[in-house]
Amino acid sequence: MDKDKTEKGYPRETSTDIGERKIIDIIASHLEAMPNLPVPFGDDVAAVNLDQKQVAVLKTDMLVGKTDVPRNMSLWQAARKAVVMNISDFASKGVQPIAALVSLGLPRDFMRKDIEEIARGLNAGAREYGAYVIGGDTSEASDLIISISLFGTAKRAALMLRNGAKPGDVLAVTGFFGKSASGLCLLLDNCSTSPNLREVLLGAVCMPKARLKEGLALSHSRAVSASIDSSDGLAWSLHEIGKMSNVGFVVNSVPVADEVRRFAEFNHLDPLELALYGGEEYELVVTVKPKRWVDAEAAVEAVGGCLLPIGKVTRDRQMLLDVDGKKRVIEARGWEHFKSKV
Amino acid sequence: MDKDKTEKGYPRETSTDIGERKIIDIIASHLEAMPNLPVPFGDDVAAVNLDQKQVAVLKTDMLVGKTDVPRNMSLWQAARKAVVMNISDFASKGVQPIAALVSLGLPRDFMRKDIEEIARGLNAGAREYGAYVIGGDTSEASDLIISISLFGTAKRAALMLRNGAKPGDVLAVTGFFGKSASGLCLLLDNCSTSPNLREVLLGAVCMPKARLKEGLALSHSRAVSASIDSSDGLAWSLHEIGKMSNVGFVVNSVPVADEVRRFAEFNHLDPLELALYGGEEYELVVTVKPKRWVDAEAAVEAVGGCLLPIGKVTRDRQMLLDVDGKKRVIEARGWEHFKSKV
Repeated sequence: MDKDKTEKGYPRETSTDIGERKIIDIIASHLEAMPNLPVPFGDDVAAVNLDQKQVAVLKTDMLVGKTDVPRNMSLWQAARKAVVMNISDFASKGVQPIAALVSLGLPRDFMRKDIEEIARGLNAGAREYGAYVIGGDTSEASDLIISISLFGTAKRAALMLRNGAKPGDVLAVTGFFGKSASGLCLLLDNCSTSPNLREVLLGAVCMPKARLKEGLALSHSRAVSASIDSSDGLAWSLHEIGKMSNVGFVVNSVPVADEVRRFAEFNHLDPLELALYGGEEYELVVTVKPKRWVDAEAAVEAVGGCLLPIGKVTRDRQMLLDVDGKKRVIEARGWEHFKSKV
Repeated sequence: MDKDKTEKGYPRETSTDIGERKIIDIIASHLEAMPNLPVPFGDDVAAVNLDQKQVAVLKTDMLVGKTDVPRNMSLWQAARKAVVMNISDFASKGVQPIAALVSLGLPRDFMRKDIEEIARGLNAGAREYGAYVIGGDTSEASDLIISISLFGTAKRAALMLRNGAKPGDVLAVTGFFGKSASGLCLLLDNCSTSPNLREVLLGAVCMPKARLKEGLALSHSRAVSASIDSSDGLAWSLHEIGKMSNVGFVVNSVPVADEVRRFAEFNHLDPLELALYGGEEYELVVTVKPKRWVDAEAAVEAVGGCLLPIGKVTRDRQMLLDVDGKKRVIEARGWEHFKSKV
C-alpha cells in the first residue's frame, strides 16, 4: 500500500499539509446548516436572527502563545490583541461590539502577576472599543491560549458582508499596509532598521488597532457593497471578496506605508510583497458603490479616518495588479496558520 | 530576600498554586464592570440586556486535550463533550441554546480524519440539544483545544441564577452522582470492576448528558429559587450556591448512584467521596420554593426526568451532611483545573 495513503485511500494529510482555510471548509462540510442564517458561513462573523430586523452577531478567535505572540510582545499586549483581532471582524461588518467572554488556557508556571497582566490587557482591549469583558473560564494548557468570543447586535440590512461586490464598484482601504509584516521581519528574520522606524513597525505588531469607527461609519453610510478585514493580508482579502461575490479586481495603486518603503529599501525587500501578502493587519478592505463614493469617503473622514481608493471591481474573476503599465497577478496567499512560519 | 516572594512582596504563586477559581477572581477584579448586568459575574453563564424583558445569554469554556481528554475518549466524544459541557451551563439557567461557535486549536500532526471526527462530534453535541454550530476559527496549537461559545436568548425573569436560595427551600438534584468520578478512577487509578459496570462508568465520562429538558422545565415552572450545574462536583455546587445566596445546607441523603456503591465496595473506596467531590458530572443542583415543590417535580417528570430532594437550605452558613444521625461537614473541594490531577 502507498505509505502516503490511508486504508480508505485518503491522502495522509496532516493539519500542516491541509492549512487553516481548508480545515475550516472540512469542518463546515460536516455541520448541519442552521436555517435562515443571516450571514453565510465563512464570513468574518456569524449571526443569528433576533427578530424581523435585528440580528445577534457573534465571533470567536483564539490567540496561541507559541504561534501568535512574538517574544517581545508583553502579556498585556497579547491579551489586548486577542480582543482587538476579534473587534476588527466586527468593524469589518459595521457592528458595535457589546460584550466579550474569554476562555483562557494557562500554563502551570504562569505567575499571579502574569494573570493580572492578562486581565488588564483584556479589559483595555475591550474598553478601548466600548465593549466589556463580562465572563469566561480558565483551564490548564501547555501553551498560553486566549480564546475570545464577542457579542453585539445589528440591523440585518446594515451588515457589510463579503458577498455584495459588483463590477464597477470602487475598491478601497482604510489605511496603508505592510507595517506588521515589516515588524515581523524585524522580529523573526535578520532585518534591521533605524530605532525610530523600529518602534513604528514593532508597534504595528504589538499594538494593532481595529478600524471600528471607520466600519461603523461605513455601515451607516450604506455606500458599501462588500467588506472584510485584512487580518490575513490584503491579497487574501481580495481573493475572499472575489470568491464570495463572484468578481475580480484590478488594483491600480498598492497602499504601501511610507515606513515600509524605507524599511524595504534598507533591507533589499520588495515593498509590494510586504504590503500584499503580510497579514496580521487590521485595515478594512471594502467595495463602494461608485455613485456613493463621496458619501463613503465623507463618512470615514468625519470620524477622523481615511478611505483610499486602490482599484476597481471587475466582472472577470481575475486578481490583477496594474501599476505603472506593468501587470502582475495577485496571488491567493497570505497569513495562514499551519502554513505560515513564525 | 525570601525566595518565595517577589520584589513587590507578593508570594511567588504559580497558576497551579492559585487554582482555577481564584484565577477567575483575580481576573474579574481587573475588569471594568458592565453596568446593569442581568447575571452576576461568576454565575454559570453571562448575559446582556436586549430589551426590557429579553436577554442574550452567552457562555464560553474550553476543553484541553492533555487535561480533559482521557486516553480512551475518541475525538468525536471529546468534541461532543466540549459542546455538552457548555450546554449544561445553559441548562442550569433554564436557557435553550441556539447557536455555537468553535475556536479550535489543532496540533500540527492531526490528520484529515481527526478533523472530520471533531467536526462530526461538534455537530452531534449541538444538534442533540437543538442548537447549531454556525461558525468558528482554527489555529495551530501544541495541544488539542476545543473552545466553544454558546448563544441563546431568554426572558430575564425566567433565568435561574445561583443567588436566589432562601432558608427553608428544598435542595434537589436531577440524578444520581459519582459515576464520572468512578469512571475516572477506572481510567487513571488502579481500580477495577465488572465489564458491565465498566461500560456504564466509562460512558458517564465519555458521553455526558446535559439536563437541558429538565432545566427548561424547571425554569418554566417558576418554582426554582437557585440553580447551578454540578460540573465541579456536588459539594462544590453547594458551596457556590451558598456563597452567592448567603445560605447554608443540610443534606440528608446523598444521591449516590447504585453503580457507584457497587464500584466503591469492590475497590474499598468511600461512595460518598465519589458522589460529593468527583465532578465532571452534569446534573442540575437546584433549590425549590417549598410551596412549589409539587410543580417542580411534576415539570421535570413531564419531560421524562426526575427531581430528587436531598436536603434543605439553612440560614446558617454551614454545609452539613446529616445521614443516619451522623453529621459531617461537606468540604469546599471538587474538580478544579490546576489543582486536580488527571
